[in-house]
Amino acid sequence: MKKIDHIGIAVKKLSVSIPLFEKLLNTPCYKTEPVDSEQTNTAFFKSGDSKIELLEAYSPESVINKFIEKKGEGMHHIAFEVDDIRKEMKRLEKEGFRLINIEPKPGADNKLVCFLHPKDTNGILIELVMERK
Amino acid sequence: MKKIDHIGIAVKKLSVSIPLFEKLLNTPCYKTEPVDSEQTNTAFFKSGDSKIELLEAYSPESVINKFIEKKGEGMHHIAFEVDDIRKEMKRLEKEGFRLINIEPKPGADNKLVCFLHPKDTNGILIELVMERK
Repeated sequence: MKKIDHIGIAVKKLSVSIPLFEKLLNTPCYKTEPVDSEQTNTAFFKSGDSKIELLEAYSPESVINKFIEKKGEGMHHIAFEVDDIRKEMKRLEKEGFRLINIEPKPGADNKLVCFLHPKDTNGILIELVMERK
Repeated sequence: MKKIDHIGIAVKKLSVSIPLFEKLLNTPCYKTEPVDSEQTNTAFFKSGDSKIELLEAYSPESVINKFIEKKGEGMHHIAFEVDDIRKEMKRLEKEGFRLINIEPKPGADNKLVCFLHPKDTNGILIELVMERK
């Protein structure tokens, strides 16, 4: 785990939350991107060497919609950058952490990603991300 | 807002969560410290240029205890490093964000801190932190 790649935040409407986070962070949103595998639209802000990622559902079946229905808007996941995602997945499985996807899958921002089961990580959804080569 | 200083995570027991996060992050806890103003014990892990802070209540009145009773263990706040906390507090107030403490107060890690009202920030508790000089 090299560093915090980003913090994912579930929001109802990007049209409301993008200007809010631009004011809060005092920096412009530098990219928006749909992530079809999660049925979400995403928006990114730089914060030092890490990013803030806003997530908006674009269909009722999106996990973000379900999350907001249950818990309201707020912090959704923490993503850590790794050098070798397959190696890190193996290490974590050996340590007893369960993986939600057993193969790395495409995420936002041209990354390969893997999620860990929140039951094993103090209730926090953890994502591993690796730059695609 | 220079960068993510740390992510605060509410846990029931540091004695359980410190070894868990050492395995997860593959790095040792480098410091534990009580924060009497919040009636919490804290534990820190490095992650790149940022930190993960675990928070355990040491009294039933601690905000962390109340948080866990309501929402369970999990992400509690995001802290951003700022150069000049008073200047940043003024900027944010002008933008319409409400401050929870109107004067900077002592936080963990020899910092001065200020919290923003989560109702103004998509349900997320945001902390500003500045190194004490």
